[in-house]
Amino acid sequence: MMISGTTKIFYMLAHPIGHVRTPEVINPLFAERGIDAVMVPVHFTPEDFATGWEAIKRTRNLGGLVVSVPHKEQAYALSDEVEAAAEELGAANVIRRGPDGRMIATNMDGLGFLHGMLNNGQDARDRDVLLVGAGGAGKAIAFALARSGCKSIRISDVDPGRAALLAADVAVRYPSLSVTASDADLDGADMLANATPCGLHPETDPLPVDISQLRPDILVADIIMKPRETPLLKAAIARGCQVRYGAGMLDSQIALMVSYFGY
Amino acid sequence: MMISGTTKIFYMLAHPIGHVRTPEVINPLFAERGIDAVMVPVHFTPEDFATGWEAIKRTRNLGGLVVSVPHKEQAYALSDEVEAAAEELGAANVIRRGPDGRMIATNMDGLGFLHGMLNNGQDARDRDVLLVGAGGAGKAIAFALARSGCKSIRISDVDPGRAALLAADVAVRYPSLSVTASDADLDGADMLANATPCGLHPETDPLPVDISQLRPDILVADIIMKPRETPLLKAAIARGCQVRYGAGMLDSQIALMVSYFGY
Repeated sequence: MMISGTTKIFYMLAHPIGHVRTPEVINPLFAERGIDAVMVPVHFTPEDFATGWEAIKRTRNLGGLVVSVPHKEQAYALSDEVEAAAEELGAANVIRRGPDGRMIATNMDGLGFLHGMLNNGQDARDRDVLLVGAGGAGKAIAFALARSGCKSIRISDVDPGRAALLAADVAVRYPSLSVTASDADLDGADMLANATPCGLHPETDPLPVDISQLRPDILVADIIMKPRETPLLKAAIARGCQVRYGAGMLDSQIALMVSYFGY
Repeated sequence: MMISGTTKIFYMLAHPIGHVRTPEVINPLFAERGIDAVMVPVHFTPEDFATGWEAIKRTRNLGGLVVSVPHKEQAYALSDEVEAAAEELGAANVIRRGPDGRMIATNMDGLGFLHGMLNNGQDARDRDVLLVGAGGAGKAIAFALARSGCKSIRISDVDPGRAALLAADVAVRYPSLSVTASDADLDGADMLANATPCGLHPETDPLPVDISQLRPDILVADIIMKPRETPLLKAAIARGCQVRYGAGMLDSQIALMVSYFGY
């Protein structure tokens, strides 16, 4: 990759920044396809995000942005135009430039989950899903699951009120589907999706569910990318479950992003 | 070069941006030395520079900046701290981070000229120099020449007032040296330094001096980097003059920059 004065600049925004993976995956793809572009990680705190956004908007050689936690809601609010996938979640993770310099936002988290981890959603079809985690990622995954043809979704969170709000939000948009708040009980579920950060720090994090409840018929999907094999996935494999790795979500989104950026 | 979440970000700021060379030269040096850093070109117009600066200052993983035309004066004014080499010129081209996040500015244009083009200044010693161009680059070169031990400096510019101001400015700081404004006459000079942009567009630019005046004893230095061999240097070579190429100025500055950035 040769960075020159004509190279288009893409930023990956997150806080903290050290763990982000997108530049590592997208830059080799740019290079391989002969695209004169580079993505660099840029670290703003949430308080500085709006100031950063103002400057990014005025950057004449900007190609686009990838936005991660905790900036997705601010990116959504600051964009000039939002696509339906971002509007549904009130959060944006990919922003491209319009021909007039406008910032046009979408959200590919749900699509990445379905494409990259669930065989285009088919793996969730007719499943009774327990989703653990109702934060930003959980929200994207809940809406994605609702579109996958699953049978039911129960949503659990350490904050039960947050789980209830998300369940109600999804239920309103997908009224024919059973979507309820729940505790983290695997009884009656044949799919588990972890959308909590539990597992990012394998030594110290608690497990997101009681793993003694894992049965071989439960498909276990964990969106954590690093480590690839979280303690939850290790336990699931040990108990004979099929598992899906978070890295698939990133790989799948990368291809979608490059295409969204116009290449 | 693998860009990851831990990579320090350096920006090269200029307007326009397409012609900048620093990223092409500094990134391979970062890679070769195992430094986890990358420099990308960022294009702000002069009106947007202050907004850009505000965001850059708040970028937590920023390593430093290289600033080119026409932003050097704004960068000087906006820096939290300036070193003597920047203060002399009222212009900054390299900014590093203090341990407390402060933006500390210097100017390496003069040093780059002396080190990279004039054998650490020795090539100008005892010469009678005609400097053509009294803009930002001309200013840096005039002060550098004044420190080189040259015999005299005559400064010419399409705007004679600008040449007179610069000559007065240098004369005040180097009172024992003959520094005067002049027309672009090579009579009595045994060195010519071109600090005008004439030659950037070889097909259409006028020559900065009357080349019929070039004699073999005149050392000709042209700070233009691209094309490497400007029409002026071609003419000088044809007339048997020794010449010095602008690229040397960049190469020399790069090593100084990397060290200024703390590597």
